[in-house]
Amino acid sequence: MKTEIINIGNELLIGQVVNTNAAWMAEQLNLAGFTVGRVTAIPDSHDEILAALGEAGDRAAVVIVTGGLGPTKDDITKKALCDFFDARLVFSDEAYVNIVRLFGSRGYPMTESNRQQAFIPDNCVAIPNVNGTAPGMWFQPQPAVGSPKSATANPKSQIPNPKYATFVALPGVPFEMKAMMSDHVIPMLRERFRTGVIIHKTVMTQGVGESFLSDILEPWETKLPKNITLAYLPQPGIVRLRLTGTGPDELTVRALIAEEVRKMEALIPQYIYGYDEETLEEIIGKLLLEKKATLATAESCTGGYIAHLVTSVPGSSGYFRGSVVAYSNDIKEHTLGVLPESLSKYGAVSETVVAEMAIGAQTRLEADYVIAVSGIAGPEGGTAEKPVGTTWIAIATPDSVVTRHVLLGDHRERNIRRAALQALNMLRKELV
Amino acid sequence: MKTEIINIGNELLIGQVVNTNAAWMAEQLNLAGFTVGRVTAIPDSHDEILAALGEAGDRAAVVIVTGGLGPTKDDITKKALCDFFDARLVFSDEAYVNIVRLFGSRGYPMTESNRQQAFIPDNCVAIPNVNGTAPGMWFQPQPAVGSPKSATANPKSQIPNPKYATFVALPGVPFEMKAMMSDHVIPMLRERFRTGVIIHKTVMTQGVGESFLSDILEPWETKLPKNITLAYLPQPGIVRLRLTGTGPDELTVRALIAEEVRKMEALIPQYIYGYDEETLEEIIGKLLLEKKATLATAESCTGGYIAHLVTSVPGSSGYFRGSVVAYSNDIKEHTLGVLPESLSKYGAVSETVVAEMAIGAQTRLEADYVIAVSGIAGPEGGTAEKPVGTTWIAIATPDSVVTRHVLLGDHRERNIRRAALQALNMLRKELV
Repeated sequence: MKTEIINIGNELLIGQVVNTNAAWMAEQLNLAGFTVGRVTAIPDSHDEILAALGEAGDRAAVVIVTGGLGPTKDDITKKALCDFFDARLVFSDEAYVNIVRLFGSRGYPMTESNRQQAFIPDNCVAIPNVNGTAPGMWFQPQPAVGSPKSATANPKSQIPNPKYATFVALPGVPFEMKAMMSDHVIPMLRERFRTGVIIHKTVMTQGVGESFLSDILEPWETKLPKNITLAYLPQPGIVRLRLTGTGPDELTVRALIAEEVRKMEALIPQYIYGYDEETLEEIIGKLLLEKKATLATAESCTGGYIAHLVTSVPGSSGYFRGSVVAYSNDIKEHTLGVLPESLSKYGAVSETVVAEMAIGAQTRLEADYVIAVSGIAGPEGGTAEKPVGTTWIAIATPDSVVTRHVLLGDHRERNIRRAALQALNMLRKELV
Repeated sequence: MKTEIINIGNELLIGQVVNTNAAWMAEQLNLAGFTVGRVTAIPDSHDEILAALGEAGDRAAVVIVTGGLGPTKDDITKKALCDFFDARLVFSDEAYVNIVRLFGSRGYPMTESNRQQAFIPDNCVAIPNVNGTAPGMWFQPQPAVGSPKSATANPKSQIPNPKYATFVALPGVPFEMKAMMSDHVIPMLRERFRTGVIIHKTVMTQGVGESFLSDILEPWETKLPKNITLAYLPQPGIVRLRLTGTGPDELTVRALIAEEVRKMEALIPQYIYGYDEETLEEIIGKLLLEKKATLATAESCTGGYIAHLVTSVPGSSGYFRGSVVAYSNDIKEHTLGVLPESLSKYGAVSETVVAEMAIGAQTRLEADYVIAVSGIAGPEGGTAEKPVGTTWIAIATPDSVVTRHVLLGDHRERNIRRAALQALNMLRKELV
């Protein structure tokens, strides 16, 4: 079932805002079994909106439009939709009640321009917006000419959408749009167009490239049942593997996917850290809480980034003790207790020093587990023996210290991120 | 001068990749005085590419296309361009030399599919790609029918682009595309279409909202000369104010902009921290290097994020000593020397404790300047007296300790970012 997305807003055409709405919507539509044929970004211009609506409606069965529904003068999408459908604006009690509720909860006075937002074209159904004042709109296409329903329609009832496509208009504010897509639009589309069940399972991997994974998984992938597909979704330092299954019966599809996930797990057990978009820092947080254990970090090249990831999780104060970012060698000595001989003999980027950092932090920050990292993030600081990207990681546990050497690339930002993810995954392995 | 952008790639239609190329290109085109009328994302489909090229070429004077120029089978943009222009592929020595050079520098063996990338349509000019193997392509439109040049053209020479628009094709890899846009496409477009000078100056502000700035600046803004415009470009914690001036003469426009920047500076001196996309952490780095001074951080609610920002700047090891992330109170005591009485009497989120954190880090991490932050990032931990968002910041300098109380919002991630930016800006004020 082919859909198109139209994002309306001058800010998208001057590069002020990256069109993250389109990517999120496309992913959600794909997850629900709808293909997105085209994404079009246009300015807040009456003529451009009419042209884009007409073109998309000729190509696709469903057209989803975002933006231009706010209360200010440059928000003209509703007027353009009226002109496109030859409809007129009518007051929606339902939308008005929602606006009054929102203003009541915020304690602001409501203005006339906000009241105007309760008007919607008379040929659409309002889609509730619990997070904002602009209602969404669902324009159902007109039944085929000559159908009994069309002939007997009450002339006072809604004007049907005279086009062949279903049009949906949503606000451009991401958190409003997302809730409306998830709670209403996707269920309504699946209701109207559904052909079967679609189930997804995402396997999260770390520390391995897409092409390497693909070499290992290829023999299994080619034998996948026809109703199961695999997508590689790489992010910096992480590759997500998404299995999508379709079929008439939910239990059968779920069982099939579970079986294929088990086969995949058997091929790459060492790279899998979680499922369904969980982050390493969230997984570690849960494991530490379960164990009633605490964590600290001792960071050199990652410069506090691991501590930042750990503390980005709400409730991390329940297990995170703190961190020493030891960018200079004498802080490694004085604050973490690294031996001066180790620094002079092996250098700051060495197994000995990173292990001493971990043990020092464990004692001094009184933590059960410690992540320690020392490396050369670049662009400067590399040598022939220790090029940029050389990194040592140590994990101190209540019983032992595990160390690992990794050679990353020559891009500072990516090196910091990859070293942090690698270190978090090493800790996870010690916790499970 | 109206342009359109077409981004080709299945990954854009399934939501796997956010279309950041479009936003960057739109911004660069706008900065160079070109309007972007539409951005279209389409899949790697021959028919879709031909349709989108034709439609965009009918609407715009310039059409810039990205994506689908790689060496693999799903990269079909070059074939589609040939069909669109009725051109054929010819071997480009220039493109081939570049491919050979790249493989030589990387030490990989070159494959036949990489050699194939040196073929380009015979009606275009190759645009050099120093960062990758796919050359860009510039398709100049055909001279008007009946013009002497067209009549006398050597039939063996390049087939001109038979359309009225200029078409440009670039690879979709962001860092390849960006270098080609900046080094070749924008200068070539300005050469071909330039109507005058366009000058920009961006003023960076921190710690103040867009609407508040706009209230202060409105009287000045309404009196701006007609050839100078102001754009508000908000980011989390930061508002960029971009002045754009146009005119026939560069010196005059530059002088006019400089004068208006001076007037703006006089209205909001306390909020301006820099110019032209500089970050606070870059500015602080330069100031510390100039002063030959060192920096450390003592962080509670920001959890290492300030240290991460500071160390994301290449060369920060020249002035950054390190950090203590004291998430728990006893680390504040033992590692930073905060007095137990201060913690019990005033609480961890207090002026006294944050000042003691700053002084403790100054002594123990041996730094000239220290940023210390203690606050309640949320979502838990707030009280009636100290709600979520309550934050204390201290800056220790060689002579003094400056403290400040800020009340942020209820969103953890944004609170961490806003507290960090506010603290960096406080340090900057002590350094200038």
